[in-house]
Amino acid sequence: MNRSIIKPQTLKGFRDYLPSAMMARERLIETARAVYRSFGFSPIDTPALEYSEILLGKGGEETDKQMFRFHDQGNRDVSMRFDLTIPFARFAAQHLHELVLPFKRYHIGTVWRAEKPQKGRFREFMQCDFDTIGTTSNASDIETLFVIHDLMEAIGFQDFTIRINNRLILNGLLEKLHLEEHSAGVLRALDKLSKIGVENVQSELVEKVGIETGQAREILRLVGVEGSPEEILSQLENSGLDSEKAAEGIQRLRELLRACQQAKIPSERVKLDLSIARGLDYYTGTIYETFLNERLSFGSVCSGGRYDNLAELFTKQELPGVGASLGLDRLLAAMEDLGLLAESKTPAPILVTCFLKERAADYLRIGRLLRKANLAAEVFPDSKPLGKQLKYASQKGFRIALIAGENEFESDHWQVKDLSTGTQQEVPESELVATVEDILAS
Amino acid sequence: MNRSIIKPQTLKGFRDYLPSAMMARERLIETARAVYRSFGFSPIDTPALEYSEILLGKGGEETDKQMFRFHDQGNRDVSMRFDLTIPFARFAAQHLHELVLPFKRYHIGTVWRAEKPQKGRFREFMQCDFDTIGTTSNASDIETLFVIHDLMEAIGFQDFTIRINNRLILNGLLEKLHLEEHSAGVLRALDKLSKIGVENVQSELVEKVGIETGQAREILRLVGVEGSPEEILSQLENSGLDSEKAAEGIQRLRELLRACQQAKIPSERVKLDLSIARGLDYYTGTIYETFLNERLSFGSVCSGGRYDNLAELFTKQELPGVGASLGLDRLLAAMEDLGLLAESKTPAPILVTCFLKERAADYLRIGRLLRKANLAAEVFPDSKPLGKQLKYASQKGFRIALIAGENEFESDHWQVKDLSTGTQQEVPESELVATVEDILAS
Repeated sequence: MNRSIIKPQTLKGFRDYLPSAMMARERLIETARAVYRSFGFSPIDTPALEYSEILLGKGGEETDKQMFRFHDQGNRDVSMRFDLTIPFARFAAQHLHELVLPFKRYHIGTVWRAEKPQKGRFREFMQCDFDTIGTTSNASDIETLFVIHDLMEAIGFQDFTIRINNRLILNGLLEKLHLEEHSAGVLRALDKLSKIGVENVQSELVEKVGIETGQAREILRLVGVEGSPEEILSQLENSGLDSEKAAEGIQRLRELLRACQQAKIPSERVKLDLSIARGLDYYTGTIYETFLNERLSFGSVCSGGRYDNLAELFTKQELPGVGASLGLDRLLAAMEDLGLLAESKTPAPILVTCFLKERAADYLRIGRLLRKANLAAEVFPDSKPLGKQLKYASQKGFRIALIAGENEFESDHWQVKDLSTGTQQEVPESELVATVEDILAS
Repeated sequence: MNRSIIKPQTLKGFRDYLPSAMMARERLIETARAVYRSFGFSPIDTPALEYSEILLGKGGEETDKQMFRFHDQGNRDVSMRFDLTIPFARFAAQHLHELVLPFKRYHIGTVWRAEKPQKGRFREFMQCDFDTIGTTSNASDIETLFVIHDLMEAIGFQDFTIRINNRLILNGLLEKLHLEEHSAGVLRALDKLSKIGVENVQSELVEKVGIETGQAREILRLVGVEGSPEEILSQLENSGLDSEKAAEGIQRLRELLRACQQAKIPSERVKLDLSIARGLDYYTGTIYETFLNERLSFGSVCSGGRYDNLAELFTKQELPGVGASLGLDRLLAAMEDLGLLAESKTPAPILVTCFLKERAADYLRIGRLLRKANLAAEVFPDSKPLGKQLKYASQKGFRIALIAGENEFESDHWQVKDLSTGTQQEVPESELVATVEDILAS
């Protein structure tokens, strides 16, 4: 049969993960999972496909347009999920009777958006969310910050800042100014502060959002308060902003900051920043953004906040909660940029080379022996020239090569080659594991 | 705003994973990953969506009909992947220049098929494949069996059988009988042996496949040879089947069995069964099927084989290989049936209860202290009555509850309650970690 070759290619905006990229990704996911679990968050999963009516209109017009939407074999109108928040809301409403509240879950899953592909933006990417629902307790807000902090440390970062705010403060002011119904527009404008500056935000507030210049100034004065967390909170309390809502926000921030001190979280890692708004109207309380101080341009790598009601579209039961999402792809890009990713293409540090074809079973046996000692080992399957096998080892990033020919088999010895130094030693099989462990530990 | 409630529901044939199911799934995936890695297989991933032409016609007519296929925003004809083999073939062809051969990869990913939903069959499920490509060496066939064996053991099974065969033996006979072009039909018929019996398979071979009765008998006599592996191989060698192909198959099986002995794999776990054919025409050499002896009805939970050419549709370069796929969902169902799954809904064994609201930061601090000692701990966020918190603890399956009120805080002590025995002891904070570790180890 003479078949024509089909061009092997991925779709625009999609990509394959080769081993070194995928290993970095798996390591990051494993770290996130371990940290979430250590706080008692349990995993869930939801389908990639949902009824379109579940997803439509929840992320705004832009997201609707970006949804991969079609009719399935049963003519159902279905769509691929574009985030993990809406599926979680649907999940919580659907399984409410099976969940014990408060419910703490993490969800690590792929989502799809037909965005215009551009550098670093893909149509398929992974989200990594954790949330606590069914409680309004500030203890959960505090814990959310602890999770973010411990996660960043566990990944290997030292130099990062978690910026916090509480939406109640701004909402208190907007109430006083009778501007509650402009809240979404105000948030959208404030979200641009760091990009376009105070004056342009003020123009937008007046011209686009349609509020008075004096009010715009008052809003910008509030979010512009700077200083140490304690100074900011004192200034707020003395600002004459007579609002119960704002007072509650200030109180919750004060508790949060005190808890960080008690937990001995380095103070430079937590910054109170009244200007962060996180565009979304959805958040109603504490807000979190996380920046790598050496790569601020990558934006926030872990963001979230408190909300009043997760699943109002799917159930009448109110489900307040708090959570955040780790920006996996952004983080990986930053780590690559910072040189924090290993370049290895193999998860095993040891290559057992194959010198004599008829000794295949012996090479395989040594692989087993190493694995039983918790040492990952690959056995080369073909008796190619040793030089080729060593080239293979260096191309893939192995640390150690084991070599044995007839002489070694007769005397029960192995040649152990440290590929990073080039040194080689002959050891009896009984000392092989210990020798390899020594090299790997060095 | 008075919105109407959208009914929270998943699509027909799709399902959510709640914590206890998802934890079992994650544990299984982690085990598979660890075993694959220990042999030097590295992870890859490919997109959920592919150009339809990549996937169409590769799995047969049935699979084509079951594909979720649609036109995307750019009017591209796209489909969701229905297995991980075709995407791997496309991947290998596309990235050939970046891969160093032999290339060993594992791929754990979700696939979609619009099958008629039935008990235990879903439209979204996970596959868990590993393959070695770029070598015809029998060492890789042997290693594939080792991987399957170690995987089953690592999951926790003792009583399982890996049935092996080599397609070359049957192919050798078919060549002798000049029936090569009927190979696919013969394989399909033989695949039904255990279900419909010898006589019905003979009828099918004659009536449907269209071969002579004498030939059908000869085929059935070959695949019916029984006994210990050594007996079967001797019978084959003495059967007068004069075929180089068959002789190579016999030789490779002999080496495989010898290597199992050398590796001290219990002999009852490896069975030579000439009747297993694995329907697919795709396999050309060693074949593997794995059965749980206590749950034979679940079918093979890990199957695979050797093939001559992985990616012939996408590249002219020949890529021989060998691999297998772990049936994750089937295995989970069998484990549940065998009572091998833990029922816990929490990944953390310890619940820090909240007795005094104003002490929230102290409860959170203790959570941190436990985590630093590698003990996963959840902190209850609300100061609800203790009885309610203990009910929460038992509903979710916590093992230990920690309790502290004013008295305890004054004396720096904690009440440690073992929830499985109901016993409670008071220990100073400095001994908390050791006490908790003792209970968890008991």
